[in-house]
Amino acid sequence: MTITLGGHFADRDTWSMQNCPVARTLAALGPPSAVLVLSEAYFGTSRFGDFVRNLGMTESAVTARLRHLVKAGLLSREPYQEPGQRTRYEYHLTKMGLDLAPTLVGLMEWGENYLPHEDGRQVMLTHAGCGADVVAEVRCADGHTVGVGDIVMRAPSDAVDGGAEAV
Amino acid sequence: MTITLGGHFADRDTWSMQNCPVARTLAALGPPSAVLVLSEAYFGTSRFGDFVRNLGMTESAVTARLRHLVKAGLLSREPYQEPGQRTRYEYHLTKMGLDLAPTLVGLMEWGENYLPHEDGRQVMLTHAGCGADVVAEVRCADGHTVGVGDIVMRAPSDAVDGGAEAV
Repeated sequence: MTITLGGHFADRDTWSMQNCPVARTLAALGPPSAVLVLSEAYFGTSRFGDFVRNLGMTESAVTARLRHLVKAGLLSREPYQEPGQRTRYEYHLTKMGLDLAPTLVGLMEWGENYLPHEDGRQVMLTHAGCGADVVAEVRCADGHTVGVGDIVMRAPSDAVDGGAEAV
Repeated sequence: MTITLGGHFADRDTWSMQNCPVARTLAALGPPSAVLVLSEAYFGTSRFGDFVRNLGMTESAVTARLRHLVKAGLLSREPYQEPGQRTRYEYHLTKMGLDLAPTLVGLMEWGENYLPHEDGRQVMLTHAGCGADVVAEVRCADGHTVGVGDIVMRAPSDAVDGGAEAV
């Protein structure tokens, strides 16, 4: 069960994945520790000292990862000032950072399913509105759940009238 | 807009993400080049020489990444034999590997949206059945689309009667 290669991609010998969007995304995310800092932002942490404490990372590592994520556009850096203190900075998810939610939920769900902690499952994600479990899914714009075997990969330049014709 | 921490996780000072499922998954996936080898398996590539050619990686790098992915359980290694040739091996996605589809689709979609190639969008994923665009989405078991602000994270040990009560 694999993705079907259509149109421009049909002949696997004519294209390379060396500069594919997955590779670009992984490069932008940076090291795994940057992904953990990003996850921590999803949990509502915004201040430097809280990142350091919650993640159990060194100050210099957190500084480097936050700087990387701000530069990459995933976090914004905004000044705040407590009375009598110097100006400090808070870090908040941008839309670009929030749009990684399906990826991060997918990583979390997969880890819980396949690499369980020795004490069993640690984390459940549920929908605040209805209480049902939350997962990342592959779906199409028409609302169908899509298995890997039902995905067609093509180039935008391929003329398309419908689904199956272009395969 | 962040995830709501409920139950066991409500007091952020009492737990650490050092061994979180996202971290375990990233460790299991290995280096970015292993994720690219995995993506290549999603495109239907199964034989060693095809991985080397399609990925533009060295034989030794592909060997190491395939070995890692087999050991991690994401690919299976199965013997095959062409007439007059020695036994060789094919690599196929396991269910464990296929269940990373939402994560990989999310990585690809995000890269195309936010880190476009200089020549514009390269890749479109569509549903073979209906031709509509395919994306990774966060949804609940009741079928609702779930925004980050509507996710509650709790521990399985937290007693739950519904959604909002446990927050």
